[in-house]
Amino acid sequence: MLDRIRLTIEYDGTNYSGWQRQINAPSIQETIENALTKLTTLKTCIVGASRTDAGVHALCQVAHFDHQSRIPSDKFAYALNTMLPQDIRIVKSEGASIDFHARFMAKRKIYRYIIHNAPHASAILRNQCAHIPMPLNVDAMGVEALSMLGTHDFAAFAASGSVVKDTVRTIYSVDVQKHENEVHILICGSGFLYNMVRILAGTLIEVGNGKRSCGAINRALTNNNRLELGITAAAKGLTLMDIQY
Amino acid sequence: MLDRIRLTIEYDGTNYSGWQRQINAPSIQETIENALTKLTTLKTCIVGASRTDAGVHALCQVAHFDHQSRIPSDKFAYALNTMLPQDIRIVKSEGASIDFHARFMAKRKIYRYIIHNAPHASAILRNQCAHIPMPLNVDAMGVEALSMLGTHDFAAFAASGSVVKDTVRTIYSVDVQKHENEVHILICGSGFLYNMVRILAGTLIEVGNGKRSCGAINRALTNNNRLELGITAAAKGLTLMDIQY
Repeated sequence: MLDRIRLTIEYDGTNYSGWQRQINAPSIQETIENALTKLTTLKTCIVGASRTDAGVHALCQVAHFDHQSRIPSDKFAYALNTMLPQDIRIVKSEGASIDFHARFMAKRKIYRYIIHNAPHASAILRNQCAHIPMPLNVDAMGVEALSMLGTHDFAAFAASGSVVKDTVRTIYSVDVQKHENEVHILICGSGFLYNMVRILAGTLIEVGNGKRSCGAINRALTNNNRLELGITAAAKGLTLMDIQY
Repeated sequence: MLDRIRLTIEYDGTNYSGWQRQINAPSIQETIENALTKLTTLKTCIVGASRTDAGVHALCQVAHFDHQSRIPSDKFAYALNTMLPQDIRIVKSEGASIDFHARFMAKRKIYRYIIHNAPHASAILRNQCAHIPMPLNVDAMGVEALSMLGTHDFAAFAASGSVVKDTVRTIYSVDVQKHENEVHILICGSGFLYNMVRILAGTLIEVGNGKRSCGAINRALTNNNRLELGITAAAKGLTLMDIQY
């Protein structure tokens, strides 16, 4: 009989090509699958809730897999952590019903983007934030971000080359907070298009430093034009914070 | 004519043998001195306020050096940052009077020790905190820490082999705070003996998990016995936060 296990995973994405298994590049998924395959002695595949990009981090990625070993559900975390590199930690392993699906059943996802807004970059957090030396108007960024709220066609936010057909998503909350010389963008939505949060961060940075006029997001949501929006901000500033079911 | 420059420095100590120049091991001091020597084309030595240990970090180390180049004081930060590895950043460079001394004139130093108190270690902060899986009684730790306050002979806190003669120091404030699954120990003092903050952290951890009875610090300050105190906690949890003059 197959048992389904739900994993909660934290990782530092710096040294990986992203979540998803790829040929010729180390991914988080492959690293965990290899450990699981060794542990259960059967080839094991895992399904992650979010396919985070190269350099993107997670405090709370969720994934599931099936097994027929006699390992108790909660022991997978301990066993896997002895086999995984220190930049990937299984925070929790627990039994799940056989119809639980980490990706399809995800209702809300929360991401955080950190901008280090100071003349010089941060040494300690160099891999966890984007460095923007020009002073940012955080109040203007906060007002601009509010245009994301609600259900919209976010086609303008889809990275070029994206093949997703349905580009409608719902944003439940978005908040821009200043913590000393860091600016944190926190966003909760039903889901996000590829690079959507990084394009939002890039747009808010340009509104914050005055390079782009306020109302850019409203205009983009009206005319679906990617050119209304800012650059795609660096991957390393982005962290998947939570998945809600 | 010689001009004195004061540097404010942030570093991730993970890949260094500590602040102080050593033979056969890369130090923060040597890395910055090499960049300065290249920049000014004259062999340049710097004096740091605190000789942090291998693996210890700094958000705000202070150092000074003398030069006779025509580089404006505030430009050293920008010039050095182009030459330094990303885990060392000069946060600020400014002119100082020729009698300013980063070490001898320091009045107060503030350190922070972070404990990640959860069943599994942190992937993202793996180099910035000590991992303690056993639940900690943070309230008991906070009460125990208060015994540090005031002027005492901290001889019991000096690492064995320490050669410092005067072991009297003044602790101005100490605070133990819980932030989700992290415990932060913040301490401000006139100065600290070698390993003093890490021995304090190790003692508080043992009081917090019940291995050591409350009052250990009081007993150690009375009988000067290192055995009253806990282990020396891991270097990576420690960060030099500020130096006050």
